Amino acid sequence: MDSHPIVTLLTDFGHQDPFVGIMKGVILGLCPNAVLVDLCHETAAYDVLAGSFLLQSAVRFFPRGTIHVAVVDPGVGGPRRPILAQIDDHLYVVPDNGLLSYPMHHGTVRMVRAITSQEYLLQPVSATFHGRDVFASAAGHLARGVSPERFGPAVADAIRLPIPKPRLDEAGALTGQVVWIDRFGNCITSIAREDIEALAPSKAGGLRVLMNGRPAGRVVQSFGEAGPGQCGAILGSAGYLEVFMDRGNLAREWGIGVGAAVRVEKGFS
Amino acid sequence: MDSHPIVTLLTDFGHQDPFVGIMKGVILGLCPNAVLVDLCHETAAYDVLAGSFLLQSAVRFFPRGTIHVAVVDPGVGGPRRPILAQIDDHLYVVPDNGLLSYPMHHGTVRMVRAITSQEYLLQPVSATFHGRDVFASAAGHLARGVSPERFGPAVADAIRLPIPKPRLDEAGALTGQVVWIDRFGNCITSIAREDIEALAPSKAGGLRVLMNGRPAGRVVQSFGEAGPGQCGAILGSAGYLEVFMDRGNLAREWGIGVGAAVRVEKGFS
Amino acid sequence: MDSHPIVTLLTDFGHQDPFVGIMKGVILGLCPNAVLVDLCHETAAYDVLAGSFLLQSAVRFFPRGTIHVAVVDPGVGGPRRPILAQIDDHLYVVPDNGLLSYPMHHGTVRMVRAITSQEYLLQPVSATFHGRDVFASAAGHLARGVSPERFGPAVADAIRLPIPKPRLDEAGALTGQVVWIDRFGNCITSIAREDIEALAPSKAGGLRVLMNGRPAGRVVQSFGEAGPGQCGAILGSAGYLEVFMDRGNLAREWGIGVGAAVRVEKGFS
Repeated sequence: MDSHPIVTLLTDFGHQDPFVGIMKGVILGLCPNAVLVDLCHETAAYDVLAGSFLLQSAVRFFPRGTIHVAVVDPGVGGPRRPILAQIDDHLYVVPDNGLLSYPMHHGTVRMVRAITSQEYLLQPVSATFHGRDVFASAAGHLARGVSPERFGPAVADAIRLPIPKPRLDEAGALTGQVVWIDRFGNCITSIAREDIEALAPSKAGGLRVLMNGRPAGRVVQSFGEAGPGQCGAILGSAGYLEVFMDRGNLAREWGIGVGAAVRVEKGFS
Repeated sequence: MDSHPIVTLLTDFGHQDPFVGIMKGVILGLCPNAVLVDLCHETAAYDVLAGSFLLQSAVRFFPRGTIHVAVVDPGVGGPRRPILAQIDDHLYVVPDNGLLSYPMHHGTVRMVRAITSQEYLLQPVSATFHGRDVFASAAGHLARGVSPERFGPAVADAIRLPIPKPRLDEAGALTGQVVWIDRFGNCITSIAREDIEALAPSKAGGLRVLMNGRPAGRVVQSFGEAGPGQCGAILGSAGYLEVFMDRGNLAREWGIGVGAAVRVEKGFS
Repeated sequence: MDSHPIVTLLTDFGHQDPFVGIMKGVILGLCPNAVLVDLCHETAAYDVLAGSFLLQSAVRFFPRGTIHVAVVDPGVGGPRRPILAQIDDHLYVVPDNGLLSYPMHHGTVRMVRAITSQEYLLQPVSATFHGRDVFASAAGHLARGVSPERFGPAVADAIRLPIPKPRLDEAGALTGQVVWIDRFGNCITSIAREDIEALAPSKAGGLRVLMNGRPAGRVVQSFGEAGPGQCGAILGSAGYLEVFMDRGNLAREWGIGVGAAVRVEKGFS
């Protein structure tokens, strides 16, 4: 057992309530030497797929053996199962509602188990705060060294939501969509590095981008290449094409939301 | 002395300024092995009673011996005293303005002392940031093992604000009010689990709820029982009745604020 | 090497994305016993000077040897250098764009080095997230004990932005400006404690303040001295004059932003 097990937390609980702090109290009560790291807590309430995308963008930068607790859980108190999973070298404690769709898509699923052993839950389990009573509690037991097998039986049918994938149209252009908008108004798309590389193996600079049909500059190598106030697209830090406005907030300026259409075409240069 | 003393922080300082980070620097300078946990920092500025409610909802999920620093302090720099308290097995470092009203109401007060020993404060003490110079400093000394008796004399008259309590009217209905609205728009009320149980010992499902006079569904056992977009009320994770809209934001949809009237009646079913 | 090296983080990344959490993952992967403290992450995007001011207001409350990672970096991916600096007894890992202007102004610069050794960066270094690939990575190596000399060559020309300084006009009044507005709407000015003391060595209470030409009360010793809803100015916790409204939000009530003019005059009392 790791002497400083890392436990990350990703939720849609926001920062105005003590929900996340309470989860940490439960974890530290079970495993006093846990190192707790917030990933983010402002995912749009109930948006499971966005939470999954953000989770995947973060996990590969944590050491092997990190435990990720993620709670975006519109079905709390209903019949959805709590699960425990190992994907690559990381452990996850989540509701079984698709939150692991992106990590499962990008990694190798080594184990998924339902969390059924009542001894690892905080009793009595409430109907409204499984982040505390189920997920934080199970993560705390996991962090203190309880073996994953003890939490419950293996399951083979964990929910995986369809991940938006770009497609190549007749004209040879890639069409995808906006899947996340970051704090700077950058529009992260469903178009991955490998999609761009397949389209233009040698020279990404020759690609033009349109968002909701409006020209949004070229695919560039740095924000500054576009020039202040100008648009462009770049292969971002999460491995996906991001449409941006240099030193501006593109999503706000153009009124872009998740789901906006993105098109990448070969240019003439 | 605990080798990993936990210190929680609850303030109305928000996240845009480095105030909370500065408090942590002071604590870690005094007690490098302290484990710091944020409870919440977005209590409405100066709302002491809301801060007290949130504090109480969190503390029981922390291990014995946890030190809770809470600073919602409209009277900073004025004559109000800083105090140190033990309630049940937890320690508190707070301004004496009523912030401990809820923990005192729910627990056993074992000790309250004024913090008067200048040696445990960060000198010179500023007029505007006692979170740093008084409360974080005292908490850091407490975490490193200084005995509570050394901080100052016992006091018997710590301020306790009146806690809103529901009442039973002539028609046999419970009337209370909204005391907190969470991130999801759930309206947490002053009506506690025991009030509901006294009203309907065997079958809470037969209870109807009105908020500001408007029907808000039945008392249910899970959010999903109401159905998407429908209202209901549930005994929430803090031990109080919460009025909610399943997968919606009730407070925003209905324009509800703290203080809204809530009424629970026996139904006919 | 410190057994619990403290690493603080100040960015303009906000809280809606997992950017800060990812930086922590990188640091903990390199230095598992690092103690991570958030200073603030809601600096106006790209506002380097505000970030510098907030950094300076926080660092002196941290122990000697603390490592401060600050990333407000509009030029990410462009030619600006990443640097490592020692100012007084603290270490800094930042983009060389002026972020250290305030700490350099208030402290003694002992060392500045460019970060050029590729072995201390996360490879491949992305074009858009140097907070992760450059600054967190370098800080993690520094925290685990790598000597500053190994990161790259000394530089003598680190960028220092001009710091707004108040001036004394013909009428003997001090004129300055608002440099930061905190969560409570207090308007922190460029007028430092020593400026006020030079103006009125013995009796700050005899000073009147105007903001954007409008009378804003007297210089007082505590918020409460003004009276609820009334304005005043006070030497704040960061060492600068702050104009405030007691138990109100002055910036919002008066529509004040960064850059507003502040004037301090001797009164007649």
